Amino acid sequence: MVVVVKNSTNEQELNKLMTRIKDMGIEIHVSRGSMQTVLGLVGDTSRIDIETIEALEIVEAVKRIQEPYKNANRKFHPDNTVITVGDASFGDGSCPIIAGPCSVESEEQIIYVAEKVKAAGAKLLRGGAFKPRTSPYAFQGMRGEGIKLLLEAKQVTGLPIVTELMDISQLPLFEEVDIIQIGARNMQNFELLKEIGKIDKPILLKRGLANTLQEFLMSAEYIMAGGNEKVILCERGIRTFETATRNTLDISAIPMLKNMTHLPVIVDPSHACGIARMVKPMSMAAAACGADGLMIEVHNDPPHAKCDGPQSLTPEAFEDVVKSVNTIVPFAFKG
Amino acid sequence: MVVVVKNSTNEQELNKLMTRIKDMGIEIHVSRGSMQTVLGLVGDTSRIDIETIEALEIVEAVKRIQEPYKNANRKFHPDNTVITVGDASFGDGSCPIIAGPCSVESEEQIIYVAEKVKAAGAKLLRGGAFKPRTSPYAFQGMRGEGIKLLLEAKQVTGLPIVTELMDISQLPLFEEVDIIQIGARNMQNFELLKEIGKIDKPILLKRGLANTLQEFLMSAEYIMAGGNEKVILCERGIRTFETATRNTLDISAIPMLKNMTHLPVIVDPSHACGIARMVKPMSMAAAACGADGLMIEVHNDPPHAKCDGPQSLTPEAFEDVVKSVNTIVPFAFKG
Amino acid sequence: MVVVVKNSTNEQELNKLMTRIKDMGIEIHVSRGSMQTVLGLVGDTSRIDIETIEALEIVEAVKRIQEPYKNANRKFHPDNTVITVGDASFGDGSCPIIAGPCSVESEEQIIYVAEKVKAAGAKLLRGGAFKPRTSPYAFQGMRGEGIKLLLEAKQVTGLPIVTELMDISQLPLFEEVDIIQIGARNMQNFELLKEIGKIDKPILLKRGLANTLQEFLMSAEYIMAGGNEKVILCERGIRTFETATRNTLDISAIPMLKNMTHLPVIVDPSHACGIARMVKPMSMAAAACGADGLMIEVHNDPPHAKCDGPQSLTPEAFEDVVKSVNTIVPFAFKG
Amino acid sequence: MVVVVKNSTNEQELNKLMTRIKDMGIEIHVSRGSMQTVLGLVGDTSRIDIETIEALEIVEAVKRIQEPYKNANRKFHPDNTVITVGDASFGDGSCPIIAGPCSVESEEQIIYVAEKVKAAGAKLLRGGAFKPRTSPYAFQGMRGEGIKLLLEAKQVTGLPIVTELMDISQLPLFEEVDIIQIGARNMQNFELLKEIGKIDKPILLKRGLANTLQEFLMSAEYIMAGGNEKVILCERGIRTFETATRNTLDISAIPMLKNMTHLPVIVDPSHACGIARMVKPMSMAAAACGADGLMIEVHNDPPHAKCDGPQSLTPEAFEDVVKSVNTIVPFAFKG
Repeated sequence: MVVVVKNSTNEQELNKLMTRIKDMGIEIHVSRGSMQTVLGLVGDTSRIDIETIEALEIVEAVKRIQEPYKNANRKFHPDNTVITVGDASFGDGSCPIIAGPCSVESEEQIIYVAEKVKAAGAKLLRGGAFKPRTSPYAFQGMRGEGIKLLLEAKQVTGLPIVTELMDISQLPLFEEVDIIQIGARNMQNFELLKEIGKIDKPILLKRGLANTLQEFLMSAEYIMAGGNEKVILCERGIRTFETATRNTLDISAIPMLKNMTHLPVIVDPSHACGIARMVKPMSMAAAACGADGLMIEVHNDPPHAKCDGPQSLTPEAFEDVVKSVNTIVPFAFKG
Repeated sequence: MVVVVKNSTNEQELNKLMTRIKDMGIEIHVSRGSMQTVLGLVGDTSRIDIETIEALEIVEAVKRIQEPYKNANRKFHPDNTVITVGDASFGDGSCPIIAGPCSVESEEQIIYVAEKVKAAGAKLLRGGAFKPRTSPYAFQGMRGEGIKLLLEAKQVTGLPIVTELMDISQLPLFEEVDIIQIGARNMQNFELLKEIGKIDKPILLKRGLANTLQEFLMSAEYIMAGGNEKVILCERGIRTFETATRNTLDISAIPMLKNMTHLPVIVDPSHACGIARMVKPMSMAAAACGADGLMIEVHNDPPHAKCDGPQSLTPEAFEDVVKSVNTIVPFAFKG
Repeated sequence: MVVVVKNSTNEQELNKLMTRIKDMGIEIHVSRGSMQTVLGLVGDTSRIDIETIEALEIVEAVKRIQEPYKNANRKFHPDNTVITVGDASFGDGSCPIIAGPCSVESEEQIIYVAEKVKAAGAKLLRGGAFKPRTSPYAFQGMRGEGIKLLLEAKQVTGLPIVTELMDISQLPLFEEVDIIQIGARNMQNFELLKEIGKIDKPILLKRGLANTLQEFLMSAEYIMAGGNEKVILCERGIRTFETATRNTLDISAIPMLKNMTHLPVIVDPSHACGIARMVKPMSMAAAACGADGLMIEVHNDPPHAKCDGPQSLTPEAFEDVVKSVNTIVPFAFKG
Repeated sequence: MVVVVKNSTNEQELNKLMTRIKDMGIEIHVSRGSMQTVLGLVGDTSRIDIETIEALEIVEAVKRIQEPYKNANRKFHPDNTVITVGDASFGDGSCPIIAGPCSVESEEQIIYVAEKVKAAGAKLLRGGAFKPRTSPYAFQGMRGEGIKLLLEAKQVTGLPIVTELMDISQLPLFEEVDIIQIGARNMQNFELLKEIGKIDKPILLKRGLANTLQEFLMSAEYIMAGGNEKVILCERGIRTFETATRNTLDISAIPMLKNMTHLPVIVDPSHACGIARMVKPMSMAAAACGADGLMIEVHNDPPHAKCDGPQSLTPEAFEDVVKSVNTIVPFAFKG
């Protein structure tokens, strides 16, 4: 961390600041110029709150050099974290696919889709039981009942399941769920992050619609700081000025994140664009630049889906995507 | 709602779609062109899920004409909703100010600030007990203890209090809180919104960093649909490409929202820019274009604040802001 | 400027870099830590190309402390630049209004509007002759003929005129124009900026739709570096994810810019929102936080305007805006 | 185009509007509801200025159904446009690579780089002679002299050349240039677009930093409306809130654009991220989802490049990128 002190600062004020920083166990290197004095802070600055320094009268600017995340930082953990669930390994160079409907709608539907996606090559089943919907008047999911149906589909097909947790109070229902998903809108629901940091189950953490990669890793850090190191990051599109697609898939996030962190990074091409015909090219692009997995929405009857129909693939279209992705994976970017 | 049907659609498919829509109690006006057929849907379309129509093979485009929110819609409630708490009325043409520290730090601190802001003209006291922080290593607030200290400050000064609720499980602690704040990062925490829709207490709902005005109103609608109509909307800056300010205050949101809804709209100039010297001009601008209130961060000792020091005003600077705002209010835009 | 050198750098490489920097006349203060070495660069670093340093193998990060603009920098010119044209002074604490139609459509129209806006209190007449239109099929302006009609309106009313220059080749036609406008889409048309830096006429420079305040000042710097110091900056809304308004007026840009630079800063509330009824509240907000002027679109018959009808005011509505702004100006933020 | 007329409109006003629309040769289908009347406009609405309708008192909303571009529209030209220059064909399913330095710096440099990139597999040579730089104090390019050196490199290597035109006045120097590049900042320099619409030479049009896909196609339409149909579109990253990369590569733009238009779409991964190590994964992603070509910055000595060093590849790194891209192309998305 570099602290630039104002020109006009007197010795006494400067000493007060330096004592305060040293008290945090940080070493300081001072470089005095004719126009400003620069303090180079050396040591573990990840726990310094940049704002408390910035607010000081005598400080002109503070620039963080070291990253504010530690458990998630690749610098301190050079090797990939590999998270294995059933037949799928995230982070080992393969690209397992999670597939299933946006929401669980009935026993018949979820079992049908589970069997179809398994046959096509999916390694995990996804399906929403608790649904975050923009409108209070839209279908809110089958909730507890939906979890039960997912577990039934798991039993029938053997596919591990991924489903979204929206509130701490729902946690008891998730005991047999294989991967807990935290949705984009909850990426900075810090109370929820703390709670899932205490359990021993892989977490699929989606990037918020307007969150930077650093904020994304800070949210992973929340979970890891609690003791749960099994975090799978999921890029799902960010909000920009462009309206042709629902969101803008930040494809560069894949190699950028994999450089910053040792955690696996997967992509959700369905939510990224919100358009079914875009799922295939976006899946191929994600695989090509090194994604550690994909999560794709598949529905038995997209036009009659209770949510996200326009972005859902039929089982046939999904099979085609899996084949195309599989041709790309052997040649994918390795970092 | 207007549905544009593809050119190639045959009569049978078109009839199926029309029957489905009519079954929802919606009237249809068909206009057939040589290139496309346009269906005009008339009736209460706010409960139609636009996606279920969009996903249909035969549909080229769906455009919503009517707003998807109803309880919050000014069209159906032309008069301003006025929410009165203590001496403050939000929505009656006045511009009451809520002030206090980012976070409650000690009994001494909160009582000192409460007395100061009251003397300067604030009508309510704010203070964070539960703090949403980007980093797990930053100060997380005094939590339950903080609420107690706020209530003590209320008793001493008579100022009603506003504080943030981060999770449903904290609700029992908020019984004596006058206004419950829902933070920007929880604007789409739908489970939380549903819960506070069931209680009878004013809610100060902050706009999410990357949420549109329509989404903002849909979140208000969640609360109102549960029965709680006392929602105060708070614009607090949105995330853009600009980095000179922490966020970009969307000043146009004030008159835009007041046109769309009957709910009061206030502004938080402290979080909007993240810079103390910007609070005064932004407060004045907000007052000039008709804000129904302001929420401002004031700290006894900003450079040593446990959070948001750089944007906090000293009590003296706050007094100056109140005076400047008060000169503007009588001439403010009335809509 | 602060340069962070990688841990692993050997003495020889470090010396090479330091020699290169010193050769630019910059003094260096070195602070060596156990994890990294930080170089503090002191002197006029505004001419250092940050990228040439960043690209070096041994450099981990470069952070600019000093601003890269000089002529426009308030630090070196503490007093406001005041630009006077006719009866209007921009930068002296007043808030003169420029008004007129989006585009000149006929002699009758421009003279009628000029007389009306003058009567209502406008100090300058605006009107587009060369029109930047998104579609090649839209009305492109009366071009040279439009300039002639503006000059006629100037003669009749005495109002100085402001009109947009789109290409260097049009410059000869602008000899009698009082203020040359450079549109948002040309803010980084650097060849054009260089050319108008050579002439002695005030330039009204509009902020680009997606340009930061620093880039905005760098474009002003282009003009000033050529010798023309008469630059009026104009905030006109930036592009964000919000779709309720055409653009998002960055109201904070007014006090932020006035802190960074000595140049006057005006606001165009018509383009900022693209909605006529928003012009009044946005004008009032801009005036309240210290805008040095306003530029407003007024049309004799908005529904039949050849462009930007939805955001144009009638002369009557404009008169009402002027009155409201005038009640705010005496109480405006002074910085 | 669908026009929603306000409830309160009387017959006479409605008839006036309808007559006006019919006079443009457009057929109207009226559907009257109890709450609003919807007009369905059928015919060539691409030349209707949406704003002139929107501004009418009686109109509540106007929604465009048909695209406002015609020459560029795939609906009217289902087959891919293929643009062939030297050995490279853009739009035929191959993925030719354009490579070279950000700017031409000397005869020796440009010839050296040209030979290197040719050997590695590049089909065209790029190099900036006229350079758009944010700062007036940064290197502005060798200008006319740079063009001469490019032509020399062309003669030596046989590679056709691509270079940027910044102003109409420079056009005479571009006679022997093979492809004229229009930079992102000039995407809406409409006077320049009109001018290059008159010549018979391929144009490489870069997407503006904050321009939508529709605006991008409207700028292509400007060129095509002038008679020059040889337009190559280039996605080069858009401006978002994310700061980890210089821009955000909008990877979805490739299949989206190829669906909207018949023109070839290439990608510039160097400017998209601004980081050399990101060029390889972004190139692979672009190729995988069907890009019709790539444009990559290669420099003999990136750390000493006069501009854009941090994003430039060495010839060796470039060779590695070409190989990786070539393994992906045979399996790429075909639409």
